[in-house]
Amino acid sequence: MKITKDLYQSSLVLLTDFYQLTMAYAYWKSGKGEQEAVFNLFFRKHPFQGGFTLAAGLDYVVDFCNNFKFEKADLEYLEVMKDKDGSPVFEAAFLEYLQTLQFTCDIDAVEEGTVVFPNSPMVRVKGPLIQCQLLETPLLNIINFQTLIATKAARINFAAQGEPVLEFGLRRAQGIDGALAASRAAYIGGCTSTSNVMAGKLFGIPVAGTHAHSWIMSFETEMEAFEAYADAFPDQCVFLVDTYDTLNGVKNAIRVGEILRSKGKEMVGIRIDSGDLAYYSTKARQMLDEAGFPNAKIVASNDLDEHIIASLKSQDAAINVWGVGTKLVTAYDQPALGAVYKLSAIKNADGHWEPKVKVSQQSLKINVPGFHNTKRYYSKGKAVADMIYLEDQEINPKGVVIIDPVDATRRKRLMPAFYQEEILLKPIFKNGKKVYKLPTLAEIRARAASQLDSLDKTHMRLVNPHLYPVGLEENLHHLRMELVLKAKKFDNGED
Amino acid sequence: MKITKDLYQSSLVLLTDFYQLTMAYAYWKSGKGEQEAVFNLFFRKHPFQGGFTLAAGLDYVVDFCNNFKFEKADLEYLEVMKDKDGSPVFEAAFLEYLQTLQFTCDIDAVEEGTVVFPNSPMVRVKGPLIQCQLLETPLLNIINFQTLIATKAARINFAAQGEPVLEFGLRRAQGIDGALAASRAAYIGGCTSTSNVMAGKLFGIPVAGTHAHSWIMSFETEMEAFEAYADAFPDQCVFLVDTYDTLNGVKNAIRVGEILRSKGKEMVGIRIDSGDLAYYSTKARQMLDEAGFPNAKIVASNDLDEHIIASLKSQDAAINVWGVGTKLVTAYDQPALGAVYKLSAIKNADGHWEPKVKVSQQSLKINVPGFHNTKRYYSKGKAVADMIYLEDQEINPKGVVIIDPVDATRRKRLMPAFYQEEILLKPIFKNGKKVYKLPTLAEIRARAASQLDSLDKTHMRLVNPHLYPVGLEENLHHLRMELVLKAKKFDNGED
Repeated sequence: MKITKDLYQSSLVLLTDFYQLTMAYAYWKSGKGEQEAVFNLFFRKHPFQGGFTLAAGLDYVVDFCNNFKFEKADLEYLEVMKDKDGSPVFEAAFLEYLQTLQFTCDIDAVEEGTVVFPNSPMVRVKGPLIQCQLLETPLLNIINFQTLIATKAARINFAAQGEPVLEFGLRRAQGIDGALAASRAAYIGGCTSTSNVMAGKLFGIPVAGTHAHSWIMSFETEMEAFEAYADAFPDQCVFLVDTYDTLNGVKNAIRVGEILRSKGKEMVGIRIDSGDLAYYSTKARQMLDEAGFPNAKIVASNDLDEHIIASLKSQDAAINVWGVGTKLVTAYDQPALGAVYKLSAIKNADGHWEPKVKVSQQSLKINVPGFHNTKRYYSKGKAVADMIYLEDQEINPKGVVIIDPVDATRRKRLMPAFYQEEILLKPIFKNGKKVYKLPTLAEIRARAASQLDSLDKTHMRLVNPHLYPVGLEENLHHLRMELVLKAKKFDNGED
Repeated sequence: MKITKDLYQSSLVLLTDFYQLTMAYAYWKSGKGEQEAVFNLFFRKHPFQGGFTLAAGLDYVVDFCNNFKFEKADLEYLEVMKDKDGSPVFEAAFLEYLQTLQFTCDIDAVEEGTVVFPNSPMVRVKGPLIQCQLLETPLLNIINFQTLIATKAARINFAAQGEPVLEFGLRRAQGIDGALAASRAAYIGGCTSTSNVMAGKLFGIPVAGTHAHSWIMSFETEMEAFEAYADAFPDQCVFLVDTYDTLNGVKNAIRVGEILRSKGKEMVGIRIDSGDLAYYSTKARQMLDEAGFPNAKIVASNDLDEHIIASLKSQDAAINVWGVGTKLVTAYDQPALGAVYKLSAIKNADGHWEPKVKVSQQSLKINVPGFHNTKRYYSKGKAVADMIYLEDQEINPKGVVIIDPVDATRRKRLMPAFYQEEILLKPIFKNGKKVYKLPTLAEIRARAASQLDSLDKTHMRLVNPHLYPVGLEENLHHLRMELVLKAKKFDNGED
């Protein structure tokens, strides 16, 4: 296919904002291109007004970095770019520089399937300024979306209380990869299967699906349609019962279920895709039970999300399997995560690393400076707090204070020696070489399940969740304060 | 890159819901696979509570259909699929059938850049049931998303009242293609440029961008950063002024503007990316004017959408160029269009076409039956009404009555002879062969502009728009009523 063929042939190095290239050029012109910097990718607020976020997308990032190379076609495109007066935007020598550019960054990142919290780095990139900048946009594109969907999926699965959730959002997803990457992330977040056959093929996700209303409508009667389907798939019949009249559809499903049974087969269940799901599922359950089909499953779909599922659960709807599409794969109530990628340190001419903050009128928007990482403390398998700390800072096992990055009055004293700890950023690339063994998708999904399990359920509550404690280690807090105050005085011209 | 490489190598024929394949198999088993059918792709409600929708995505659909073929790798994937008891899901003979499957459908569609309304077909597919079903999901995926974004872009450009709107949503878009397809659709909808360099390269969209906060932060002072940027791009300086303190940033931009001017160059303008845009733009305008830079543009960004732009306009904000990202490329306030694809006719064994409706408790959800198309009537270049009609129905030039598909009390009498008319569905494929010359992206964008121009501005109003009249031609209305009543009686067992 043309679109994907062009994509493949050109590498994805141009999948970036144009200003990354103009900055790269300007860095190069001003002799700063090889100056080393550290950037952190993080978000400031959980999506969906929730209490947790589930990291995803790293596999794509690794793939992107492994293939980070300006190809001939990329350079030809840049070569013919003209500015308003018709002169080339980029000097030929710069394009030659890009041609020889090798990916040499260090990348540290939280593994896919890790629960993450605001202001804590998800990806840290250390390397020459130019490379750091060129990576900004693709990394954000990949991580923002997959993390968003994995989190949405985790919320929906939480609401379904362990019952299977089938993802079938392809038809409403935002583009081809918007569908594929969403299926992948939804599986990480706990979904059981996808309807997207290509996602099944590419990622090894189980695929599921039976038939649509059009199947029923292509026959003279619903009975004929059910019977024909049962002939084709005697072992896998889930009958869609709401094409004409839902309860009549259940009756017809039962009739065909009886025919199947007379042949030694058992129908799997029915699906309801419209109407009042609480009412119809309860009625259908009753009919199925009375007819001797207590094991027939009831699959429900129709614009479901975590809130509707929770509401149906609270009404004792007799639903066993949840089909979720649009609301999941587009993260309908908040379709973007809003993670950012900020400079946190730069190496000066004298070889000294200088920590950096971007000042803002909103303290929520001030980043964490320096070379930092995050430790998670666990007690008996449960996560109790995250500490963001400077990597060269010694941590006193007898006691640390962590301070909320936004509200400095919120503090917590911890005795690290009491806890198990996990350092969240793991080395992924060292000098441009991959040093990380990519887990399989099944392993990532298992990690997500175990990470979610380590969270107290109050943090997973769909509405008004309990805030999980994340703080800056004291010294990092003081460094940040100092830098902010210095920057504010300096730039207001008050010093 | 692995993901895109796998995509390209496998063709996109598996980019479909699994139930399309199980239905295909069951059609094939029951001898109905070659039975001919007509499906229509349409939506039921304008997105964003708006009064119009702008069609986009057809180019991808044509590409998809041109490459509709089961490749070896696709078939191998299907071959090893097992059901619960370990037997193959699909018989070998069915996979052989798929292997030889040739695309033979007729496709008629509205051209990209056409304004479209609810219930009117956007794409009509006529062909063997199996092919029609396999196309359903990819067509919906492609058309739903690009139409959604083109419409959002048209709304945003309407709010900007002809001032340039730059799209820079890549970092928050839903996946790689979620970004690329969005840039394309945004350009169709009237945006001036994209930040996405790969979209520039693939589609020939102008790209734009200057520098980020990180550029400023990588220098000791903002002045140094501006000066270095001016050295690299003396003719294209747009200075981002809000890294530390916005108005101080404007002062620094003016200083560097003066330095540039002393060298015979002129700065293009400044960009403000945070804070109160109405306040800061007005202040900055005043400062720039007083300093002798009345032509310096003020670019504004920061989570803009059509409503915020309209509000800034109403406050006389001194903004000349609008940078729009997240809210545009994810269609933030409604991230899915919800178009559907419904069977409207099927050819019986006797060769007779039988019109079909899917009945629903909500009359909003009942589709239009039969082989229908839409005529748009224009008066002096302005669109006055759309009529959905049966293609074999003769239309009396002296008078027709069109009836609202949802509220049958809303009717309109038209005298076709008074108007220019345009038939909206154009032939795209005939027996699987392309019969349509694809327009260039520039032509599509021009068509969109002229189509939007043909709409009365009251239909484009952002809030509570005036409803454009779209109705079923009388005979089609009666056919639909008859089918619905018949289906309801029949399935309630009342006949």
